[in-house]
Amino acid sequence: MNNKKYLKVAVSLAKKAIKNNDIPVGAVVVDQNGRIIGRGYNRKEKDQNPFHHAEVIAIQQACKQRGSWRLEECIIYSTLEPCLMCLGTILQARISWIVFGLESEKFGSIKTLEKLKINENFNHSVGYTYEPIADSKEMLQAFFGQLRTQNGMI
Amino acid sequence: MNNKKYLKVAVSLAKKAIKNNDIPVGAVVVDQNGRIIGRGYNRKEKDQNPFHHAEVIAIQQACKQRGSWRLEECIIYSTLEPCLMCLGTILQARISWIVFGLESEKFGSIKTLEKLKINENFNHSVGYTYEPIADSKEMLQAFFGQLRTQNGMI
Repeated sequence: MNNKKYLKVAVSLAKKAIKNNDIPVGAVVVDQNGRIIGRGYNRKEKDQNPFHHAEVIAIQQACKQRGSWRLEECIIYSTLEPCLMCLGTILQARISWIVFGLESEKFGSIKTLEKLKINENFNHSVGYTYEPIADSKEMLQAFFGQLRTQNGMI
Repeated sequence: MNNKKYLKVAVSLAKKAIKNNDIPVGAVVVDQNGRIIGRGYNRKEKDQNPFHHAEVIAIQQACKQRGSWRLEECIIYSTLEPCLMCLGTILQARISWIVFGLESEKFGSIKTLEKLKINENFNHSVGYTYEPIADSKEMLQAFFGQLRTQNGMI
């Protein structure tokens, strides 16, 4: 049940994004001993930085903590299926596994991973687990519901 | 012939990577007025940061300069075909066009872009031009040649 445990930490991080009007997505990087070595939440709007997705921030923190860009044997937990940029970054950092709590039909990249068998083209391969968590979906629905209300769309 | 001009700037940046034992790749982001607003060279090894590819650094600098993550109407020039992470980042930043000076058979993502018609899945589409420049290839060949010599492989 470790997947749920770490995804819950990611959900609690995601909630911090809301106050900045950033889409609530959170992520943690966990090492081979089960220790969280990187935490992140989406800060794209706050920082006006297109890289500042939760996964990227968590990975950067983990690399800093390790003093290395290599995160072999680490797992990344994200409340949402990673986008193409985040998948590319996960592969660059040689993370071994992705666990995500909600599928993203429009921007998710896991189908890309499967379809292209990207792994064959990289020095490194990555596996994944889809572990649905209701919290992630509810959080996003509430966020977009609020946005629509603010914009007078409903 | 602007493509060549900007690619030459990118080549001169790429050369700075060599002293850090980073693979020499350089990139610049150019705005709609032809002004360079972001410059980068690969610093992955130096910074031990998997994100610090030339394109990412150039885009981050351009966003900082603009005070926005939106780089619509900008063009990115890279000495090497962008990897999947960099392509994802280019899409995130809504850059309009990619010009690259050398194809990367193993890590390049342009085929991915074509194959998946990723554009259909994004809020944004990006075009590209392959503008071969001999400097980029020669620089990389010299770098890997040197590495092999250092490692006693030849």
